[in-house]
Amino acid sequence: MIFGNARPSKGSAGSESFSQGDRTRRTILAGAMKIAACEGLGAVTIGRLAKKLRMSKSGLIVHFGSKQALELATLETANRVFADAVIRRAQAKRAGIQRVWNFCDLWLQHIEQHIFAGPYFFTGTFLEHVDQRGPIAEAVTAIAQEWFNALRKAVEEAQEKGEISRKAGPRQITWELNGLLVGAQWAYLLKHSDCWREARPALLAQLRELATGEIPSSAFTSERNWKKYLQRKSSLA
Amino acid sequence: MIFGNARPSKGSAGSESFSQGDRTRRTILAGAMKIAACEGLGAVTIGRLAKKLRMSKSGLIVHFGSKQALELATLETANRVFADAVIRRAQAKRAGIQRVWNFCDLWLQHIEQHIFAGPYFFTGTFLEHVDQRGPIAEAVTAIAQEWFNALRKAVEEAQEKGEISRKAGPRQITWELNGLLVGAQWAYLLKHSDCWREARPALLAQLRELATGEIPSSAFTSERNWKKYLQRKSSLA
Repeated sequence: MIFGNARPSKGSAGSESFSQGDRTRRTILAGAMKIAACEGLGAVTIGRLAKKLRMSKSGLIVHFGSKQALELATLETANRVFADAVIRRAQAKRAGIQRVWNFCDLWLQHIEQHIFAGPYFFTGTFLEHVDQRGPIAEAVTAIAQEWFNALRKAVEEAQEKGEISRKAGPRQITWELNGLLVGAQWAYLLKHSDCWREARPALLAQLRELATGEIPSSAFTSERNWKKYLQRKSSLA
Repeated sequence: MIFGNARPSKGSAGSESFSQGDRTRRTILAGAMKIAACEGLGAVTIGRLAKKLRMSKSGLIVHFGSKQALELATLETANRVFADAVIRRAQAKRAGIQRVWNFCDLWLQHIEQHIFAGPYFFTGTFLEHVDQRGPIAEAVTAIAQEWFNALRKAVEEAQEKGEISRKAGPRQITWELNGLLVGAQWAYLLKHSDCWREARPALLAQLRELATGEIPSSAFTSERNWKKYLQRKSSLA
């Protein structure tokens, strides 16, 4: 497992033919992402990576120029992995409360499936850097904002479709849902293993509170009932 | 502001007479805690602290011996500040749902009042270190566990007093409440300033869901009503 179960995507080229330089760059970023996911971005140093990958420091510097450029490229790669695994997949499904569920479910999955080798992306990175200045802090904040905005948009769409009540504003609903996800991860990391089993029922209970009367309350009582409801709905669509 | 609004407590000595060595140690820890709260524990180095405090590196090493010993002392000091500001104060009030509220309210206050100079303690530290091995990871995890256990005990007491329903277990209630707090901080750090105004109403809404029928539902509709209810209750006690 190089860096959890994630592989850096090939970017926009979409071609299998990589130059030797591209391959080396991807190998370096894979190593950097693994270190960062387990120990934080600050642990990614040219020296440590060179040793880990059995490369010369000068060979590594050719590809990234500076520690900061390497950190930024690591963040960008990790964000692409996260966006592919969570944001894009959730957005590919039908808009409405179902998409809000998908966002949260896929977020939980990216932890369960060890998409990253450690728990540091992105909540840890965010809390470490958000109050600082400079390009790293800006990149980290932009990534957190991108996730927040994507979830918020899904909430707004569900409100427009009349599936989520307008009693609370979309921003409030978004930070509460995000808090539920981070809270579940937090308890999971404290080895309260049951909490992971409780995360989706807790999420469904929260969605039941948010939903308008359109969806039968029984749909939210278990993950099984929820999936049955979604299936029935999609077969009627 | 040396390290937010916090001062390292005097420990168990309880005396105002400090040796020069004690004073120097406290100054060093204040500087270390400020750096760690803003940039993470990894940013606390002997060299940087020596420069910041205009001390010699060797003078600094005399007090802590190693970077690891300095990091552990910084964590211990920060934990004492946090426990005094949040845990002990919440525990000083009446047990029951009121104490659960106090835990959460004081947690929010420790962010609002900038008890630490930055947002890194303790969620950031925890996410950065929890998956690692060694004394730092153990200390960080023990601190997170101490907070979790204290909040959980308050939830259990409230259930024993019949003020919080037993529909959900105390562990689940605890991670959900902790998630709400961390979620509010997360959104606050993204400069969604309104979310901070929404944090306590959201907390009261969650407590209303958790409460048994003993407390009138109207007590949870605003912070003002909640405080009125608590006052009335304490005057009847």
